[in-house]
Amino acid sequence: MTRLADGRLRYGGDYNPEQWPEEVWPRDVELMREAGVTTVTVGVFSWSRIEPRPGERDLGWLDRVLDLLHDGGIEVFLATPTASPPPWLGHRHPETLPVDFDGHRLSYGSRNQFCPSSPVYREHALALVDDLAARYGDHPALALWHVGNELGQVCHCDVTAEHFRTWLRARHGSLDALNAAWHTAAWSQRYGEWDEVVPPRRAPYLINPGQRLDFARFCSDALLGHFTAERDVLRRHTPHVPVTTNFMGLDAPLDYWALAREEDVVSHDWYPDPADPTAHVVSALGFDLMRSLKDGPWLLMEQATSAVSWRRRNPPKPAGQLRAQSVQAVARGADAVCFFQWRASAGGAEKFHSGMVPHAGPDSRVFREVAALGADLEALAPVAGTDVTASVAVVLDWESWWAARLDAHPSADFDVLRRVRDFYEPLFDAGVAVDFAHPAADLTRYRLVVVPNLYLVRDPAPLVSYVEGGGTLVMGFFSGVVDEHDRVRLGGYPAPFRELLGLRVEEMAPLGPDEVVRCASASLGGFTADSWCDDLRAEGAEVVASLVDGGVPVVLRNRFGTGTAWYVGTRPSPEGTRALLDRVLAEAGVDPVLAVPRGVEAVRRGEVLFLVNHGVADVRVDVPGAHDDLLSGTVVSGSLTLGRFGVAALVQRSR
Amino acid sequence: MTRLADGRLRYGGDYNPEQWPEEVWPRDVELMREAGVTTVTVGVFSWSRIEPRPGERDLGWLDRVLDLLHDGGIEVFLATPTASPPPWLGHRHPETLPVDFDGHRLSYGSRNQFCPSSPVYREHALALVDDLAARYGDHPALALWHVGNELGQVCHCDVTAEHFRTWLRARHGSLDALNAAWHTAAWSQRYGEWDEVVPPRRAPYLINPGQRLDFARFCSDALLGHFTAERDVLRRHTPHVPVTTNFMGLDAPLDYWALAREEDVVSHDWYPDPADPTAHVVSALGFDLMRSLKDGPWLLMEQATSAVSWRRRNPPKPAGQLRAQSVQAVARGADAVCFFQWRASAGGAEKFHSGMVPHAGPDSRVFREVAALGADLEALAPVAGTDVTASVAVVLDWESWWAARLDAHPSADFDVLRRVRDFYEPLFDAGVAVDFAHPAADLTRYRLVVVPNLYLVRDPAPLVSYVEGGGTLVMGFFSGVVDEHDRVRLGGYPAPFRELLGLRVEEMAPLGPDEVVRCASASLGGFTADSWCDDLRAEGAEVVASLVDGGVPVVLRNRFGTGTAWYVGTRPSPEGTRALLDRVLAEAGVDPVLAVPRGVEAVRRGEVLFLVNHGVADVRVDVPGAHDDLLSGTVVSGSLTLGRFGVAALVQRSR
Amino acid sequence: MTRLADGRLRYGGDYNPEQWPEEVWPRDVELMREAGVTTVTVGVFSWSRIEPRPGERDLGWLDRVLDLLHDGGIEVFLATPTASPPPWLGHRHPETLPVDFDGHRLSYGSRNQFCPSSPVYREHALALVDDLAARYGDHPALALWHVGNELGQVCHCDVTAEHFRTWLRARHGSLDALNAAWHTAAWSQRYGEWDEVVPPRRAPYLINPGQRLDFARFCSDALLGHFTAERDVLRRHTPHVPVTTNFMGLDAPLDYWALAREEDVVSHDWYPDPADPTAHVVSALGFDLMRSLKDGPWLLMEQATSAVSWRRRNPPKPAGQLRAQSVQAVARGADAVCFFQWRASAGGAEKFHSGMVPHAGPDSRVFREVAALGADLEALAPVAGTDVTASVAVVLDWESWWAARLDAHPSADFDVLRRVRDFYEPLFDAGVAVDFAHPAADLTRYRLVVVPNLYLVRDPAPLVSYVEGGGTLVMGFFSGVVDEHDRVRLGGYPAPFRELLGLRVEEMAPLGPDEVVRCASASLGGFTADSWCDDLRAEGAEVVASLVDGGVPVVLRNRFGTGTAWYVGTRPSPEGTRALLDRVLAEAGVDPVLAVPRGVEAVRRGEVLFLVNHGVADVRVDVPGAHDDLLSGTVVSGSLTLGRFGVAALVQRSR
Repeated sequence: MTRLADGRLRYGGDYNPEQWPEEVWPRDVELMREAGVTTVTVGVFSWSRIEPRPGERDLGWLDRVLDLLHDGGIEVFLATPTASPPPWLGHRHPETLPVDFDGHRLSYGSRNQFCPSSPVYREHALALVDDLAARYGDHPALALWHVGNELGQVCHCDVTAEHFRTWLRARHGSLDALNAAWHTAAWSQRYGEWDEVVPPRRAPYLINPGQRLDFARFCSDALLGHFTAERDVLRRHTPHVPVTTNFMGLDAPLDYWALAREEDVVSHDWYPDPADPTAHVVSALGFDLMRSLKDGPWLLMEQATSAVSWRRRNPPKPAGQLRAQSVQAVARGADAVCFFQWRASAGGAEKFHSGMVPHAGPDSRVFREVAALGADLEALAPVAGTDVTASVAVVLDWESWWAARLDAHPSADFDVLRRVRDFYEPLFDAGVAVDFAHPAADLTRYRLVVVPNLYLVRDPAPLVSYVEGGGTLVMGFFSGVVDEHDRVRLGGYPAPFRELLGLRVEEMAPLGPDEVVRCASASLGGFTADSWCDDLRAEGAEVVASLVDGGVPVVLRNRFGTGTAWYVGTRPSPEGTRALLDRVLAEAGVDPVLAVPRGVEAVRRGEVLFLVNHGVADVRVDVPGAHDDLLSGTVVSGSLTLGRFGVAALVQRSR
Repeated sequence: MTRLADGRLRYGGDYNPEQWPEEVWPRDVELMREAGVTTVTVGVFSWSRIEPRPGERDLGWLDRVLDLLHDGGIEVFLATPTASPPPWLGHRHPETLPVDFDGHRLSYGSRNQFCPSSPVYREHALALVDDLAARYGDHPALALWHVGNELGQVCHCDVTAEHFRTWLRARHGSLDALNAAWHTAAWSQRYGEWDEVVPPRRAPYLINPGQRLDFARFCSDALLGHFTAERDVLRRHTPHVPVTTNFMGLDAPLDYWALAREEDVVSHDWYPDPADPTAHVVSALGFDLMRSLKDGPWLLMEQATSAVSWRRRNPPKPAGQLRAQSVQAVARGADAVCFFQWRASAGGAEKFHSGMVPHAGPDSRVFREVAALGADLEALAPVAGTDVTASVAVVLDWESWWAARLDAHPSADFDVLRRVRDFYEPLFDAGVAVDFAHPAADLTRYRLVVVPNLYLVRDPAPLVSYVEGGGTLVMGFFSGVVDEHDRVRLGGYPAPFRELLGLRVEEMAPLGPDEVVRCASASLGGFTADSWCDDLRAEGAEVVASLVDGGVPVVLRNRFGTGTAWYVGTRPSPEGTRALLDRVLAEAGVDPVLAVPRGVEAVRRGEVLFLVNHGVADVRVDVPGAHDDLLSGTVVSGSLTLGRFGVAALVQRSR
Repeated sequence: MTRLADGRLRYGGDYNPEQWPEEVWPRDVELMREAGVTTVTVGVFSWSRIEPRPGERDLGWLDRVLDLLHDGGIEVFLATPTASPPPWLGHRHPETLPVDFDGHRLSYGSRNQFCPSSPVYREHALALVDDLAARYGDHPALALWHVGNELGQVCHCDVTAEHFRTWLRARHGSLDALNAAWHTAAWSQRYGEWDEVVPPRRAPYLINPGQRLDFARFCSDALLGHFTAERDVLRRHTPHVPVTTNFMGLDAPLDYWALAREEDVVSHDWYPDPADPTAHVVSALGFDLMRSLKDGPWLLMEQATSAVSWRRRNPPKPAGQLRAQSVQAVARGADAVCFFQWRASAGGAEKFHSGMVPHAGPDSRVFREVAALGADLEALAPVAGTDVTASVAVVLDWESWWAARLDAHPSADFDVLRRVRDFYEPLFDAGVAVDFAHPAADLTRYRLVVVPNLYLVRDPAPLVSYVEGGGTLVMGFFSGVVDEHDRVRLGGYPAPFRELLGLRVEEMAPLGPDEVVRCASASLGGFTADSWCDDLRAEGAEVVASLVDGGVPVVLRNRFGTGTAWYVGTRPSPEGTRALLDRVLAEAGVDPVLAVPRGVEAVRRGEVLFLVNHGVADVRVDVPGAHDDLLSGTVVSGSLTLGRFGVAALVQRSR
């Protein structure tokens, strides 16, 4: 597999010189060097500049930019500028513009306005990619190809419908199979001819869930195809240059497991909310997921130096937070720390998104922090290319996630990500390293596997045999409900795991929005719970906790094969979940990286123990032994104090 | 009139064998017999199965289903499957698909996707109905025709526009009359040619209320026409088989008075929210309304055994509630208790809607309660065909309801149903039997007529002469405001009832969302009120209660002819309304069925006194004399205790 | 400039006789005379009556109406009925109907359904205007032309697109200039041909802010062109008759500065919410703005006698409030007090909007108050034509307002009007007279200029030189951020005013929705603040107040030239703003009209001192000297007591 060269951490950001007069460019390179920038991403939104009219090419400016950067020692992640076609494409070929669920054809004047199934769009995009690869494939500054941007387009047009039908034929083989999969016998939805099948579109009432689920898969695959088409053109020119596309956040319409398989390195855009005091936990979750997608280092392709501009209120980051967040990313596997963008734009829709060089200019807190971070990352070079080792895996599956979000469910407030966080947060607080895993993955290397939710189960075997072979598994409610076509697995939930778990759920029972139930447990102590409470009966499992009122079991533990399977039929309070996981971790023999006070993050990457204080109060942390702090250059013996947003990167002193 | 044979209560539900492999069907019949099922509804959503391609007929499976049921002793309510056309109809004839207010043509892939004015749809639907009636009209299992499903489609397309114009010509005769009725002199809306007239569609600002009101009437009539067209085909084949269409809830776009006139028996789908502790009161209201629509027994065509799937959160019903709710329906006139649906679906949009046989299978609490209920209903056979006698009527009029919901009114928070409940609930709590009545009905048989709201008044005479002839009437605010064209009746509100009520309202005054006013009354005691407070003056009426602050009268009593008319110009608290109704009931000589504690429902149907405890605590009820309880088989002497969701069906012992 | 004749205050309202039978008209005139009505507006929504079919004219009824009014001594504001085209125009020329942002073509059946760029609409409208002017230009009742109604239509159709491109060519000259202005280098939005440019339409994500801002300007200009086209036709016929168009409220899509320049007199529709106890402050703000638009008397063209019908809840006005509100308008420069409308409509969408003659008829509180107000206005004739003198100006600029409302800003909760109110309210409470001013106006006549917000700055020079020349200026945060194309002025905010203010803002920091910060100040005392807190450093300015926590300056004062410039980097509590303005007013030598208790308004117009009690409790006001009260006819010596909604119009007695 093609990889970026190891040995150092990349530092930089999106560089959009086309937004600035050419006389500014040399000053940019100077400032980049001052800030320790190693790498910039160029060209993400340059299509209309490169191809001002159909078929024309204006590349001289880009030649000069790349040469200038290379001369300044800055390497380039070169983007295919296909995320935002020029106005002329939409104007001349309106059929390339996406159509929304209601049937409105969307306009240009924004970005992302293309139908992923459009052959006209595809043709124009690939021609451009081909030319760029031909021209810059050998440029010495080129380090990586960055395909498009934050893939996520969805279209409901007639061209898409045709593409969807082709995809469905491949998936289902026959119309009979599709009718069975979609359960079209309900509501008289049986399809008699392929031509009748269309994407989900505004309808009088609920839309067939099988259709919606397959459309979610199709949209993911269409974008995957969009990516691989560009990648294949690039690889033809430059087989040695790695290719990525930047993922965005934790709520994407794409199956990142599938997409990660097709790219050479995972890259991620991440924008924690400065107003959310728990944002660092979600950051950690996202970073662990990115690391897990290809089981190794990844690139933080975009973050903000300070404020973003797309939330309702966009406060700046307080002094020091940027450093803490960046070191956190490195601790959890990032080999690059990049920003959107180098200079905050003076115009356009993103002008209030902060930059490495803010509107106020280099004489500013933000630029000083940016420059200091450059030095920090140089000091952290020893971790480049190294990995984080975890003995706990959290299962996350996109198609189950999509299915769990469909409507007409027991609770519209059920949220897969919320459930993942419910289990992830106590693990984070306990300082336990976590990987994410696909439900079909080989899990034998983990001591504990947590399944916060797996509503849709294609094949239960891997999880069942994992436990059978000695593993410990914790499964949350609303799991094992449907098959891959969103058809209920009958006989009592969660049918495919009933034997594994030693229980049977008769009815799934969401609680009221403000409803809280009390639970009793000899081993875990009492705790409260909310959101949900399965009506279940143990059929072999040991009841670990039950409702105080009525006695329905809520936490069960079942020996299965040589392993143990836990089931949690409600949503315990954070304290309840913590008590449960403490016991499970102890039984499974999982140790934390380091016992740290709340609010401090401890992660070991390679040989380096990272400590991050995400709070503003000083915290004292005990660290047995003597360590060198790569960041401060000091020696830490036995303990250290982390100030507001304080960080440390400790390497054990050789004795 | 064609009726179902009397002498027993029907029990069963929607049966959709097309969703299951044929080998399951014999097991279904076995389980039905085990559960005491007498009747199932077949075919509601079977169009695409019956007519897989235009003009084809696949009916062998349905033959086998009906034979199997008949052999098992189960009778059939056979549905015309016209509620949900197959995809091929929308695909080949997009003009049959409905267009929404915004102009979007809706897609298939859901259900209900037809334009009620479409001749193409109508032609296909009637051909199918004709064939079904021809084939199954003589089938021994056939007990009733079930037309379509929960009629409610609305369309704004050009075909509808043409149909609307035809309807308007018939209604108004001339364009001048339409211009006068719609008051098009305002805002320059005068129509010069019929072709200019269109349905209400998205516009820059408020749409003409006369146009909106007539469109509401038209939509109701279009669906009525849809129903009668099918009914007429069915009657031609089977004049002896009764025809119904299932009504849904309390917020329908149809005038159920008009529709009930055209069907042989009223049927009703009702889904109380298990999370709403007052749901049984609204249930009672709906059941009384259904009984009143044709003045006799009705069919509970659909309810859920446990959870539904269309609310935001869908908890199951607690143990016992299903029985209490079902007996409640019977007590208020239901001759059938049916469910949607027999087996909970394994797929499709309604798979999490509970069934008589749940996902967990027959070995489940739900199925056990279903089977027990079958036995209960057999025990209640004596009430089949009998009626409930009430001396109080509540006036409800659909066209006034539609008009009261139009915009640009004194308060957008005014809600007719809320107002009906304001008066109904104290009557329910007092154990007083209530009918509903159309404002043009003959009301002489009632001692008390309550008019919670009658914003639109076609003809005030029936109400006026009712009081003149000795009746007692209670009228709520915002009544008597407009004529049938939504044009204000001038001269002080409520103009047509000012003499009847002995008062004059100068201005209607909604209160603020959190505003509460205090009222004083010598006879009723003090009470608070909210929502509204007319600025009115008595002109002959006795002032019974007034605002503490300012002295504006809020409750007035007027002797008129030999009767009494009350007016309530505000919304008293529940306690205030209760005090008022206590006095009114006493003066009118209305007695409760039985004095019962709060939370217990007492209804007399035929010879049977029903008692239902809708709460979870035991309640002791005094019942003078000695009774047999049809349900428990015990003798009740003087009193009994109803446990959680406890019910009793008492017949006085002959002395 | 053409003006209405002075010497009296106009009194009246919209008169829509076409909504009533002709036999009512003589009674109308009688009642008008009874109420002291001088003037009515006729014809606003009469197009479909006047031109029932294309090209026809039905004007006999209007002849009779005007003659009848004239005979009764009532003058007429004659409207061009172009705000609401007849159904036939939309039916025959659907291209005249507006298209919304989503692409829906809106329907008739409401009002305002025209595309301002439509040549077909324009042609029909002007032909009608031409005929009306020809027919009624010499009618003795004609006093003023009232063009259209509450201009505000926006359209996104293809005709509009063509018009928009023409407008853009004129504005930007070249496509290169447009690309630069809109910063299309971002997101690959560069336009290669003029034909590619379209109005903002629904798109996948944020739309280019330059495009949106120019479209806002274009829409304003298109309506301005619509107005001037009609005005020019009218002037050709009647150069001596003044022309107006009625403005609406404080949130219009038009630049009223520009529109006021083109009309002869400003007129205003104003509907304070009876449920808002501070509504009179916003009224005062609006009235001061209207007076400022043409620097002199204006016409209150519409208000309601009691309830309106378009809010969620529409309470009537309490007794007396109408008088207080009307006198308030006169006090702040109104030369006319008019209502929408004479008779409350019996039908149509506005039937629950109160009228001078309510549904209840003339024997009503409302009509009695209307008649009494007629007499009051006669007594106030001496102020007709006189002006209000202010030494404080508040800067308000529509294009900056539009720009500040664009999305992707530091805070979506930022609201220009809220900011204007933040500064206006303490000035109102202090009894300080205020004008509004355009940022390019000559401000030298003011002692104090307040700039609550000026996000977009075309040219900072007028404000800078105002201070340089000795003026005092107070500027709020988020000012001076962008140039006329919404491109950030770089180098630290607010770049064009940094020297003037002696400071530099590095980052703009919105606070959380519930966040409150504490501020300390030696001269102002402590106060709290919310919403926003710039991260700024003084660069020469004196720090007057700072954050308690962290010490960031929040209020700064800078001597510049011979004047003083204040900057407020947060949103102080009302008390904090009051303390600040007290000091600023004192330093600038601004005196109140009269020191009055809270809730009492004091305004001097011409020789008359107006006092208005907007509360319901009696208030005693000290008024040094002896005055005649024009309203009560009494002499006021030293003090007077104003009862609930009490008013006085005092003229100093000559000694």
